[in-house]
Amino acid sequence: MKLATLKTADRDGSVVVVNRELTKAKFVPDIALTLQEALDNWAGAEPRLQQAYQALNEGEMDFFPFDACQAAAPLPRAYQWLDGSAYLSHVERVRKARGADLPKSLLNDPLMYQGASDIMLGACDPIETVSEDWGIDFEAEVGVITDDVELGISCGDAASHIKLIVLINDVSLRRLIPDELAKGFGFLHGKPASAFSPVAVTPDELGAAWNLSRLHLPLTVHWNGKLFGHANAGTDMQFNFARLIAHAAKTRKLSAGTIIGSGTVSNYDSTTGYSCIVEKRVVEIVETGKAVTGFMHFGDQVRIEMLDEQGHSVFGAIEQEVRQCR
Amino acid sequence: MKLATLKTADRDGSVVVVNRELTKAKFVPDIALTLQEALDNWAGAEPRLQQAYQALNEGEMDFFPFDACQAAAPLPRAYQWLDGSAYLSHVERVRKARGADLPKSLLNDPLMYQGASDIMLGACDPIETVSEDWGIDFEAEVGVITDDVELGISCGDAASHIKLIVLINDVSLRRLIPDELAKGFGFLHGKPASAFSPVAVTPDELGAAWNLSRLHLPLTVHWNGKLFGHANAGTDMQFNFARLIAHAAKTRKLSAGTIIGSGTVSNYDSTTGYSCIVEKRVVEIVETGKAVTGFMHFGDQVRIEMLDEQGHSVFGAIEQEVRQCR
Repeated sequence: MKLATLKTADRDGSVVVVNRELTKAKFVPDIALTLQEALDNWAGAEPRLQQAYQALNEGEMDFFPFDACQAAAPLPRAYQWLDGSAYLSHVERVRKARGADLPKSLLNDPLMYQGASDIMLGACDPIETVSEDWGIDFEAEVGVITDDVELGISCGDAASHIKLIVLINDVSLRRLIPDELAKGFGFLHGKPASAFSPVAVTPDELGAAWNLSRLHLPLTVHWNGKLFGHANAGTDMQFNFARLIAHAAKTRKLSAGTIIGSGTVSNYDSTTGYSCIVEKRVVEIVETGKAVTGFMHFGDQVRIEMLDEQGHSVFGAIEQEVRQCR
Repeated sequence: MKLATLKTADRDGSVVVVNRELTKAKFVPDIALTLQEALDNWAGAEPRLQQAYQALNEGEMDFFPFDACQAAAPLPRAYQWLDGSAYLSHVERVRKARGADLPKSLLNDPLMYQGASDIMLGACDPIETVSEDWGIDFEAEVGVITDDVELGISCGDAASHIKLIVLINDVSLRRLIPDELAKGFGFLHGKPASAFSPVAVTPDELGAAWNLSRLHLPLTVHWNGKLFGHANAGTDMQFNFARLIAHAAKTRKLSAGTIIGSGTVSNYDSTTGYSCIVEKRVVEIVETGKAVTGFMHFGDQVRIEMLDEQGHSVFGAIEQEVRQCR
C-alpha cells in the first residue's frame, strides 16, 4: 500500500491512498483525515486502507491524478524524528579524514540523535537557508514510521512496529556542525527541516526487497542532474530498523508516528558513489590531501529516488532546489 | 489566563480554561478542542479564551471542580521540545566537579538540546523507569510555549512569540548521560519523558513577576516532602526566553506549540538549594571529595511548584512518584 499526504489549508494536510504506479490518488475521509489519525489507530485503519488501495489499483474507484509536488511530507509535523547512523562506511570515512579510527563500540551500539520534527518538508519543497557559507549538504536516507512502541522492546518484537517506509533527505549545514557538536548537546542549527518522499509504503508492498527490516534496493542520488550515488540500502547496514527501534525505546515508550531514519546510506564499495557531499569530500581529503567538491549553491537541485527491480519508482522522487530565504 | 489539558480517551486530551485559584475548570469546545488547536490559531483563539477566563473568575460561567491530577501535560504530545541551559551556576558547578572551567563561549552562546516530545507527562503521572542504577534525577525548570516563529528572528521580536509559560520536570537518568554524550550526538536514553505543571499561563497573568522574558519568582522543589531548593528563576538566568527562542530559530522556523525550557533553575547563592540532585552531588564532591546524596529510589516523590508573592500556587504542582516499570 502507498499513502501520501496532500497539502491543504490545514497544517496536517489530508491523507490519500495512491496507486502502485503513483498516478492516481483518492481521499479516504471515512477511514482517516490525516496520516497521524490513521497511525493513532493503525490496527483499525490499515485493513480498510488496504482495501481502498486494492480498489484503486484495480480501477474500481474514482480517483484524481496524483501530483507528487502537491505532496506534503507524509507527516507534515511529526511528534518524533530520530535519526540513526547505521551505515558504518559513512561513519568510518568521515572519521578517517580526521585521522580517527572507528571506535569498536559503534559496531554494537548505534549512534542516534533526536531531530527536529515540527516542520517536515514535502518532496518538492525548497531547501530554504540563509547562507551558502553554512555548507549546505543533502543526506539520502531510508526511514520507517512506527505505531506505539513499548519501553524496553526487544529487537525481535520491534520489527512488527514498522508500519510505513519512506525516503528522507536529512538536510545538513556542514560548517555549523563541528562547533555545535563540540558543545556536547547534539544537533540544533546543523540540521534544519528534513524532506520526505511523496509516498510512504507498507512493508508488504516491497516484496522480497524488504527482508529482515532492511530495504535491499539502490538509493539513487542526482545532484544537478548528474548521478552522485546509487548505494544499496540493504548492503552494509550494520543495524537494521528493528534494532534501531529497540535502541530508541531503551528508556522510554515511542508514540505512534515516530519516524526513525537509517542515517546516510553508504556502501564500503565506493564505486556506488555517495549519498551526501561530505562523504565524497572526506574521501578526496584522504586520497589527495584536500576536498575539491564544494557544497550546494543557491539554485542547485538534488533528486533522491529508489527504483524497484523493474525500474519503477517505489516512493516517487524527492526533488528539491536550494533557495536563499532572505 | 490559565489553561490546562484534561485527560480524555483522545491522545491529545481536551483543553479547559482554569480559574486563577485553580479550583474551577470549563471546557471551551466552541473555541478549541485541544491546546494545539488553540495555538495553531492563537490570534483568533486567545481573545475568546481570555473572555471565558474572565467569566470563569467572575463566577459568570458554569464550571466543574479542577483536579490537577486529571491534567495531562498542556500538550500531551508536542511537535517540539527544546531545552536550554540558561542558568550558568548549574553548568559551572557541574563542570567544577570534574576540574573544568566554564568556557567563555557559554556566556554568549546558549547550550540547547532537542528533546523528545512525543510523550509528555501530566503533573501527577509517575516517573516510570527500569532501574534505580540509571541515576534517576529531577530537573525543575520554567518553560515557554510559542506560536509560529520565523527563521532568523531577532531577540527583540522573539518575545512576542511567548504565548504560555509552564513548569517542567526534565527527568534525567544521570548514569546513562556521560557515555551518551561521549558519543557526540546529544541525549537519547538519558532524557526520558518530561512532566509539566497542571496549567499553562499567559505572560499577562504573571504581572510584574514576568519581566523582560524572565520569570522572577522562586521555584520550590521538595524531595520526599523535604525542601530541596527554592532558587529564584529570575536570578542568574544568563539568557532570557526571547534569546533562547532566537537561538533555536537561527537556521529554521519553529512551529506553533514549540516548547522551550530554561534548563535547570539555579542560583549562584547556594543557600537557595538546588533544583536537581546532581548539582547538590557535585557541590558535595568539590567540598568533601565525594557525593553523599544518592539519586531517587522507587517510591520517592518530587514536588515542583511556584508560589506568587501572596503565596498562591501559580501553575499548580508537579507531583510525581518514581515507579519501576517492569
